[in-house]
Amino acid sequence: MSDLAQSLTAAHRAFLSELFPGEDCLFAPEERAAFSADASLERGMPWAVVRPERREQVEELLRWADLERVAILGRGRGTGRVGGAVPAQGGVVVSLLKMNRIIDVNERDFVAVVEPGVIAGDLQTACAAKRLLYAPDPASVRISTIGGNVSTCAGGLRAVKYGVTRDWVLGVEAVLPGGRVLRAGGRSHKDVVGLDLTRLFVGAGGKLGLLTEITVKLLPLPEASASVLVGFSDLGASLSGAQAVFRAGVLPAACEFMDRETLRAVRLIGADIPLADGAEGALLFKLDGTGPGVDAEIRALTEVLKPLDPASVEVGRGEAEERLWSVRRSISPAAYQIAPDKLSEDIAVPRGRVAEAVERAHAIGRERGLTILCFGHLGDGNIHVNILHDARQEGEAARAEQAKDAVFRLAVELGGTISGEHGTGLTKASFVSEQLSPLALELMESIKRTFDPHGIMNPGKGW
Amino acid sequence: MSDLAQSLTAAHRAFLSELFPGEDCLFAPEERAAFSADASLERGMPWAVVRPERREQVEELLRWADLERVAILGRGRGTGRVGGAVPAQGGVVVSLLKMNRIIDVNERDFVAVVEPGVIAGDLQTACAAKRLLYAPDPASVRISTIGGNVSTCAGGLRAVKYGVTRDWVLGVEAVLPGGRVLRAGGRSHKDVVGLDLTRLFVGAGGKLGLLTEITVKLLPLPEASASVLVGFSDLGASLSGAQAVFRAGVLPAACEFMDRETLRAVRLIGADIPLADGAEGALLFKLDGTGPGVDAEIRALTEVLKPLDPASVEVGRGEAEERLWSVRRSISPAAYQIAPDKLSEDIAVPRGRVAEAVERAHAIGRERGLTILCFGHLGDGNIHVNILHDARQEGEAARAEQAKDAVFRLAVELGGTISGEHGTGLTKASFVSEQLSPLALELMESIKRTFDPHGIMNPGKGW
Repeated sequence: MSDLAQSLTAAHRAFLSELFPGEDCLFAPEERAAFSADASLERGMPWAVVRPERREQVEELLRWADLERVAILGRGRGTGRVGGAVPAQGGVVVSLLKMNRIIDVNERDFVAVVEPGVIAGDLQTACAAKRLLYAPDPASVRISTIGGNVSTCAGGLRAVKYGVTRDWVLGVEAVLPGGRVLRAGGRSHKDVVGLDLTRLFVGAGGKLGLLTEITVKLLPLPEASASVLVGFSDLGASLSGAQAVFRAGVLPAACEFMDRETLRAVRLIGADIPLADGAEGALLFKLDGTGPGVDAEIRALTEVLKPLDPASVEVGRGEAEERLWSVRRSISPAAYQIAPDKLSEDIAVPRGRVAEAVERAHAIGRERGLTILCFGHLGDGNIHVNILHDARQEGEAARAEQAKDAVFRLAVELGGTISGEHGTGLTKASFVSEQLSPLALELMESIKRTFDPHGIMNPGKGW
Repeated sequence: MSDLAQSLTAAHRAFLSELFPGEDCLFAPEERAAFSADASLERGMPWAVVRPERREQVEELLRWADLERVAILGRGRGTGRVGGAVPAQGGVVVSLLKMNRIIDVNERDFVAVVEPGVIAGDLQTACAAKRLLYAPDPASVRISTIGGNVSTCAGGLRAVKYGVTRDWVLGVEAVLPGGRVLRAGGRSHKDVVGLDLTRLFVGAGGKLGLLTEITVKLLPLPEASASVLVGFSDLGASLSGAQAVFRAGVLPAACEFMDRETLRAVRLIGADIPLADGAEGALLFKLDGTGPGVDAEIRALTEVLKPLDPASVEVGRGEAEERLWSVRRSISPAAYQIAPDKLSEDIAVPRGRVAEAVERAHAIGRERGLTILCFGHLGDGNIHVNILHDARQEGEAARAEQAKDAVFRLAVELGGTISGEHGTGLTKASFVSEQLSPLALELMESIKRTFDPHGIMNPGKGW
């Protein structure tokens, strides 16, 4: 990686200005600054920002960048939480927001074809208009791009029933360093010819090439949905409740949990919460399918929860369903009621070990005098661990960092992962080797060299 | 590849005998012959057959084989249809049938951990006993191994709702040439750390290493199922019917179609078919979920089919459901009522182009005086094309081969694939380059060299 260019020459700038006319090439510091960060606290100034409108520009760009050894960082809306899109070592940021056509939403083939800059929620909406479902549903769905979702293998709320982004990608078109165009997969729902290059790009974090077109599969849009918010006396009862629901054969589209501290934060912002005051643990289910099927699942769910004596059970349909989910959505802002700073992590563990993981995460916080909120996608074992602290207090930021380290080690110890959906980027790069073996890392590096022999694609990020 | 050993030396044989004592190492021609074929018509005699019981033996074997440049072919039950497990160029066949422990079926983590030699249907059964679902359901499920299913990314009947084997594999343990053990993925349902080595092994056809342990995800077992066999006046009406069902928001677990010639074959064996005599096209749906949900889906399905005036609609539950599926299962043997020989192909096309694909496949047969049956997984666009012929008749085998070529070209022309689930192995190896680009093939070869620098793993097979 050491032979990468350390800055842009005048000739480089001239090349970029010609390939990306006018406002499609930004050099001014105040313009570049807008592309220096993402939703993490990481920062790095790009040397230039370019905004391709056509694949041919991307081809020419990557031909040039490979020859000139200029680092290239693809970027969607910059909603990532780990610095994956941050040019910490400089380089040229390629904003793909102008490649934002929904090329096809096809109700006969049950596929959609989109450019990477399409907002994922816009794709969902376009599909729903044709009574089709694009199910991946990361919390950022209304603001993040499909290209970013694919590059990070975005997860989200509905993964327990519908899987993650990986499970929905049928084909990709990508431009590789050197400017060659790879087309892998396509519109066929089944295809077993060749190694699975399509899914290799899913979650690759922009380290293999730049995606220029994505084909996803679709399903029929379920006709009905409903949600149920259940309050419990404590977190243990909540987790037993979730086990009981799954054991009853109910497969919810979403199964979220919230611990006591999370509920305390949500109550502090005065939200109108349809949850018993005494509840110190909560589950939020979403069910979808046919109308009668959803009704049956709600009956089964409330029935199997009865022996656990829930503090409250609130069923919501239509607008009332939205009200239940506003509780979940309020967590992130509410956390700041408890402390001004937080580290947001997203470990995942085998589903049966969530209780142990949460209990030990709480202990990690207690030992360091910090409040730790745990909530998230219980159905996938994907726990959002928010380490709250006040960086103005002497030593607290350092203690929060120590807690983060301990949480990551806990995840690995429990047979889980340091990231269920955010990726590693900059903030977790140094922890990757605690999860992945030297052999796995060696294979990944070698595969990367196959696509990117000079290491120009998003350098310096974790696997 | 040319530096691979051309035969075993006496020292090689001594090594193998020591590592695999007694009956776990076979050299006698009559014993080896049992491992020379699969469900294709391809044949090739292995130089030796070994049967490991433990991963450590596999490690030592692949350390040796890499040094000695001896070709290694993993093998499950040999049910593949394309010669993928056939040692056409010799080499050592590694039967994994003794590594057949179901290590864990876990109702808390919703995962199962198995060795590769477990019969896929046995895994399904073990899961169902704990009210858990392992959904991939290839036609061979009762006789094929999970290792083979993963190596070929087996598809099957329920892919339309539940996806293919790829979508169910959470982790693999594999021994690579040189004897190194790779562990990728694990028991977490979500994990975005690193390149996706896990799915790279799914469908890799034994060309990267030998799988020694597989972790799959499970879902709650649906409480109810029912099936519906619908007869139509012709295939066009059948395909319109399927579109109508999906448009109505019904997502069947399976959606099979049968064309006129397929129904003729099935009737010739005198099967008791619950289908109107006049039906010249048929759909077979399977629905699963809650009891009321399944009822609702059956109502919706029969309602939207009414305008298409189906010749018959037969709903089956319990044992009656089995009777409907016996029609589907009888196709393979029934085909021999029409002609003594057949080529069985499994193209897939975008779902909306199935009608065109079937029509043109029939024309390909007619032009060559051959009967071609089309049936299969309509929901995935995965068409089983059976080219019937009589090899004893002058020129007919050659015409069947020509028809096969034309069918493959048709699939690629329609934006589809030459294999939806069987793979390419020996029988389709020469067609792979018609579907995959030179760049894709170059990347696959390079990735393979990363895992297998001397090309010892299952050489001579198509991607």
